[in-house]
Amino acid sequence: MRGAVLHAPGDIRVEDRERPTLVRPTDAVIRLTAACVCGSDLWPYRGIEKVDRARPMGHEYVGVVEEVGDDVSTIEPGQFVVGSFFASDNTCEICRAGYQSSCIQREPVGALGAQAEFLRVPLADGTLVATSELPADDLIPSLLAASDVLGTGWFGAAAAGVGPGKTVAVVGDGAVGLLAVLAARHFGAERVIAMSRHEPRQKLAREFGATDVVAERGGEGVAAIKKLTGGLGAHCVIEAVGTDESMMQAIRATRPGGHVGYVGVAHDVQLPGDELFMSHVHLHGGPAPVRQYLPELIDLIWNRKIDPGKVFDLELPLEDAAEGYRAMDERRAIKVLLRP
Amino acid sequence: MRGAVLHAPGDIRVEDRERPTLVRPTDAVIRLTAACVCGSDLWPYRGIEKVDRARPMGHEYVGVVEEVGDDVSTIEPGQFVVGSFFASDNTCEICRAGYQSSCIQREPVGALGAQAEFLRVPLADGTLVATSELPADDLIPSLLAASDVLGTGWFGAAAAGVGPGKTVAVVGDGAVGLLAVLAARHFGAERVIAMSRHEPRQKLAREFGATDVVAERGGEGVAAIKKLTGGLGAHCVIEAVGTDESMMQAIRATRPGGHVGYVGVAHDVQLPGDELFMSHVHLHGGPAPVRQYLPELIDLIWNRKIDPGKVFDLELPLEDAAEGYRAMDERRAIKVLLRP
Repeated sequence: MRGAVLHAPGDIRVEDRERPTLVRPTDAVIRLTAACVCGSDLWPYRGIEKVDRARPMGHEYVGVVEEVGDDVSTIEPGQFVVGSFFASDNTCEICRAGYQSSCIQREPVGALGAQAEFLRVPLADGTLVATSELPADDLIPSLLAASDVLGTGWFGAAAAGVGPGKTVAVVGDGAVGLLAVLAARHFGAERVIAMSRHEPRQKLAREFGATDVVAERGGEGVAAIKKLTGGLGAHCVIEAVGTDESMMQAIRATRPGGHVGYVGVAHDVQLPGDELFMSHVHLHGGPAPVRQYLPELIDLIWNRKIDPGKVFDLELPLEDAAEGYRAMDERRAIKVLLRP
Repeated sequence: MRGAVLHAPGDIRVEDRERPTLVRPTDAVIRLTAACVCGSDLWPYRGIEKVDRARPMGHEYVGVVEEVGDDVSTIEPGQFVVGSFFASDNTCEICRAGYQSSCIQREPVGALGAQAEFLRVPLADGTLVATSELPADDLIPSLLAASDVLGTGWFGAAAAGVGPGKTVAVVGDGAVGLLAVLAARHFGAERVIAMSRHEPRQKLAREFGATDVVAERGGEGVAAIKKLTGGLGAHCVIEAVGTDESMMQAIRATRPGGHVGYVGVAHDVQLPGDELFMSHVHLHGGPAPVRQYLPELIDLIWNRKIDPGKVFDLELPLEDAAEGYRAMDERRAIKVLLRP
């Protein structure tokens, strides 16, 4: 089968890979309907995360089940499924508490490479959620978004304690940040401030429910949020970048007693304990437990209550994955959908 | 009047200071019944916090109101009052949200020096809570504990999300850590693990409700907590030290999705963003909003439901404050009560 492989920073190739088969009786193999490029794929693509050997890429996926192992009981061949980027048993104490991405049996799906024609999904019963029937084609982008970026934005909003009456700021205007805006609005936030300097992203943020846009960043961005919130800072700030600057921007834009939900994969972030102590913020985040939200997200998408698929502004055949990475790296595209 | 002044690391002197008077119409002046030495007083005493000029010490206090400013309406001369270490208006949006120690008008009482005969308390209406009548003498230590260490332990437990059915670990066996044990038990925790190597403190922890004691610290301490919790870590960990080691011990001893409540004043702490991200913990803490809890704490003490005053294992006249600091510095005493 064909699949995208990162050989070195900047060097993505679509090449022949061995077609995956069932390895354990809890596995499923799915034929991918669509996959995509994630902001977090850019960390190794840009060489910020080390690339010491060729690695298959991709961890966001929707597809049709080809075959399942003997121990799989809730997923059947022929079903259309949405998965999440950590395989999880969905039964352990950590999963039951809603943290499937820290499941005691978790496995990163990214290591298996979802930018491909087929994918082996471990712990299929716990990881995959099937739709009631095959979806209409125009729902595919939104269902694919649920697999990571939407679920991650959702977790960011939950971790930031978003709810009715709250003022929310979102740091980061990638697909996750934009979908965090959508989530915040869905959670009933009174005011949602998108922090973005890019006109097309500002526009999409407003479509998703942003009430305000702040173009400044860093200290000026913090000052702008304070100005919009009576000098106090936002109740809830969602961080969707993962740098030291963005984390501090999020913490400083939050009022004492407020909440920072951080979902940008942290790179070289060091949080100063004394400032954190005096800030009085709540801090929560990490890899989103997308599996927790999938049934609800699929339902919202199926019934066309939300349209997160709008974040895909470029669709390419899988064979052109390299162009997809380039477009995202250069910020020509918000998010790229790949069709195998 | 007499008052304790820190001249340089290790150099505490009780000397004549000017008796405080009303400065603003929202002030009160109180005659101190008792004061005490705080673990956080040891940071400058040990020279870890810079001492660049002589400074009055002490921020925990109970006493009888001598006089009040013209704008004070709820506090009257003759009342016995308990205060907290940040003066607060108790009316601003941040106070109303329960974060009086980040009040938009807050003032540190410590700068005024409560280890003395008299103390000026700013924002008296918002800061002080009066008891219904003068307390019995044996209640003084417990009421004094409410002023900081009990309120701080209480906030640590609240910030760590302690509740029925939870397993709680407490890092730090100073007065705050010990009273966090008491708070955790009061909040209904199923299991409270005190981390302490000191036999008298272990004993007091058990009196306050600890179900287990772990003597190991650092990585071994984390391993011990994991062993006691089925490999997962505690649901709730209260950090009451403020060093890099204790913070990481707290974070690593917490299960994914669990809560760290940190109340040790952070010194030279740098939290690694990537580890925090993958830990999936909730992190909350800072200077305790003691004022929020004072009415409840006073009530519990008045009705002899809790006896936090047990943390005072050495009582000295104010004149012997220097010996009090030495005893705490050398860990000969858990907490020292000073009688002016």
